[in-house]
Amino acid sequence: MSETKILLEESEIPSQWYNVVADMPNPPVPPLGPDGKPIGPEALTAIFPDALIEQEVSTERWIDIPEAVREIYTLWRPSPLYRAHRLEKALGTPARIYYKYEGVSPAGSHKPNTAVAQAYYNQQAGIRRLTTETGAGQWGSSLALAGQMFGIEVRVYMVRVSYEQKPFRRSMMHSWGAEVLASPTEQTESGRKILAQHPDSPGSLGIAISEAVEEAASRDDTNYALGSVLNHVLIHQSVIGLEAKKQFEKVGDYPDMIFAPCGGGSNFGGVAFPFFADKAAGKEIRLVAVEPSSCPTLTRGHYAYDFGDSMGLTPLLKMYTLGHDFMPPSIHAGGLRYHGDNTLVSQLYNEGLIEAQAVPQLATFEAGVQFARSEGIIPAPESNHAISACIDEALKCKQSGEARTLFFNLSGHGHFDMASYDKFFSKELEDYEYPAEAIEEALKHLPKVAQG
Amino acid sequence: MSETKILLEESEIPSQWYNVVADMPNPPVPPLGPDGKPIGPEALTAIFPDALIEQEVSTERWIDIPEAVREIYTLWRPSPLYRAHRLEKALGTPARIYYKYEGVSPAGSHKPNTAVAQAYYNQQAGIRRLTTETGAGQWGSSLALAGQMFGIEVRVYMVRVSYEQKPFRRSMMHSWGAEVLASPTEQTESGRKILAQHPDSPGSLGIAISEAVEEAASRDDTNYALGSVLNHVLIHQSVIGLEAKKQFEKVGDYPDMIFAPCGGGSNFGGVAFPFFADKAAGKEIRLVAVEPSSCPTLTRGHYAYDFGDSMGLTPLLKMYTLGHDFMPPSIHAGGLRYHGDNTLVSQLYNEGLIEAQAVPQLATFEAGVQFARSEGIIPAPESNHAISACIDEALKCKQSGEARTLFFNLSGHGHFDMASYDKFFSKELEDYEYPAEAIEEALKHLPKVAQG
Repeated sequence: MSETKILLEESEIPSQWYNVVADMPNPPVPPLGPDGKPIGPEALTAIFPDALIEQEVSTERWIDIPEAVREIYTLWRPSPLYRAHRLEKALGTPARIYYKYEGVSPAGSHKPNTAVAQAYYNQQAGIRRLTTETGAGQWGSSLALAGQMFGIEVRVYMVRVSYEQKPFRRSMMHSWGAEVLASPTEQTESGRKILAQHPDSPGSLGIAISEAVEEAASRDDTNYALGSVLNHVLIHQSVIGLEAKKQFEKVGDYPDMIFAPCGGGSNFGGVAFPFFADKAAGKEIRLVAVEPSSCPTLTRGHYAYDFGDSMGLTPLLKMYTLGHDFMPPSIHAGGLRYHGDNTLVSQLYNEGLIEAQAVPQLATFEAGVQFARSEGIIPAPESNHAISACIDEALKCKQSGEARTLFFNLSGHGHFDMASYDKFFSKELEDYEYPAEAIEEALKHLPKVAQG
Repeated sequence: MSETKILLEESEIPSQWYNVVADMPNPPVPPLGPDGKPIGPEALTAIFPDALIEQEVSTERWIDIPEAVREIYTLWRPSPLYRAHRLEKALGTPARIYYKYEGVSPAGSHKPNTAVAQAYYNQQAGIRRLTTETGAGQWGSSLALAGQMFGIEVRVYMVRVSYEQKPFRRSMMHSWGAEVLASPTEQTESGRKILAQHPDSPGSLGIAISEAVEEAASRDDTNYALGSVLNHVLIHQSVIGLEAKKQFEKVGDYPDMIFAPCGGGSNFGGVAFPFFADKAAGKEIRLVAVEPSSCPTLTRGHYAYDFGDSMGLTPLLKMYTLGHDFMPPSIHAGGLRYHGDNTLVSQLYNEGLIEAQAVPQLATFEAGVQFARSEGIIPAPESNHAISACIDEALKCKQSGEARTLFFNLSGHGHFDMASYDKFFSKELEDYEYPAEAIEEALKHLPKVAQG
């Protein structure tokens, strides 16, 4: 039997990130200001350092990874590429299944790949503090880790209901020295406004974003950091796909299809875009973004200009969206509940160059449990979406007898999501198909100025 | 800067485990029956398969690792040896600090190294079910994983108070298909007896052991599995130290001192005993077992025959003990609360060939947080004991200017122990020095027949 884990040396950590813009057939659709006119990079200088703004609009194919960032990467990177021998056997499929395991990072997911880069560039720009928002805490803990590594204070606005019900990622952030506040707080205008009307507000990601952005915009020593959606985040995450390409080369194989969970797009973009370069050069490969059927942004949303946040404070982005006032159904256990998507992912999907699939919740947990019982690792609920789609394809191969090479990104472990598994085992989780009427309704709420 | 992680290929996973008995200057002191006479291996056949009983009393230096076990090991092994560059820098020490990271296993600790072996040998012996006990769930989840890998049903008797207060490792066991019962149960004589007297009993490890052993002894298709204390467990864990030796060879270094947390001894024995072979051959190396000062078995206990369990059902073992009726103080957050110790660890300590240190609880958490802020990984509270002792030594090196090579076993991550970190941050944890009177008192309760 061939090896289980395909490993790289630390010297093989990529020295440059990849930027898909260079290989796209059309230039990226620009963001717009509230007046409907394209905005330039200068609109972002209040909350991001120049280096990240440059990356956000860069058309260069390759962007150097600073040595200090690569040094932190060595704490867990290169991450292993696994051949899923035991899962293949359990499925009885002729397909060869591989997965890249990003749960080896100290925070347990792929998020630190960009958190570390963002902390570094902010430190270089003389920034002393970073603010961010977090829901269940995956992104907040990654930024806490990264801030600690570069001596930057991190303040995390954590959605109050998560702060109270999911204390363990909060403790993780404390372990790495971050300050964690239950949002809404009394510390910001946005927070005070909400609390005046709803003293018992459970908070929301939208409110937490507003608080974090407001504080960053109002303090010279403080910037803001975002864990997905933006282009520079996807650039940093390209380290996943770039490593994977080297690993496939080592075993003389190459994926026919790649599956990745897709919420804001950083996971999918991170693993799939470096392979898009090959596709643009003529190689046959299918890149599949997998999203929950309760939040079917790509598969059923509108391709339109919309706000990135629920309060309508951000520039307008051309993306697939369920409407910025989208409220994720509470029966959903995992992440991937963002109403929109990264604009490059959206554009490539609109041009038919990448694919998307929506999968129902129960199927994702079934797939995750089957995976855990074969391969050992208990996956994060987000990762279960990719596993579910990959297993479906492997079973098609079983039917057809095709020995395809399937590859998915196991973006994180589920150690902080066991409560969701508990609900799954006790049959408290349900499937939820996002209603067609809500999608129709969203059309009416899209910002008028920008469409057409 | 040299590499952060020293990796091995899967082909370098050892093909044989190491048995320290072959290198001990004196033969192991035998276990005794209740009549004070040495007992033979046959006393164990009701609950263990022959292969494990043979290992328990083996004097062979090398024991072949079955290919099927090595295959499962490849899911996470070889585990990385880290050079703690960032911790060294934070401490400003000339010492070179290394740690072996066993948290990469799907269960998050070193425990699966033996769980997998035990599940395999039981499967080979035609056993269909395994029972075991678990407190916080680290061992139970490891056996659940291992049982799933070899198609063996696992029933875990989990101490009721943990079952209710620490649901996440329970969910983990469910994810791997194990049955988890809150002990005491109505399913065993032992459980029923307790419940008749104390219907609301919170349970204890002692009761859970009795239930698991009783069930295994009474059913032909069922055996029992133990996660530490016994010799065969230490043999399986030797894979840690054997890999580490190869890794040190790769970088041309060798430890002057090894630190490992010590509860039942499998962690310490696993990492340190393969180096004992070199010590026996004349090499200078110090092997330090680190225990909590709230449960100072080696440093302050009696070296005497005692029972392995609190009910007095096991054979009598010559070991360092605080008395089998030892009640661990509830203020202690981590593991390592076993009243006794593996007999080989005890004997070598008694002969002055290995060392032991007791460290107070708060210092261990301080060390763990300092480690997390330098190296990223949040350690299990048990592992923090080794980290604490290692940091103390590194600071001594700073004083003396000696560039010693220090090595500790990072036996697991703390993802399921964040509640303990929470208590540490909110100052709810205290130090607790085990009282001298209790140690005196224990002398009186030692089984009379066996001493002298």
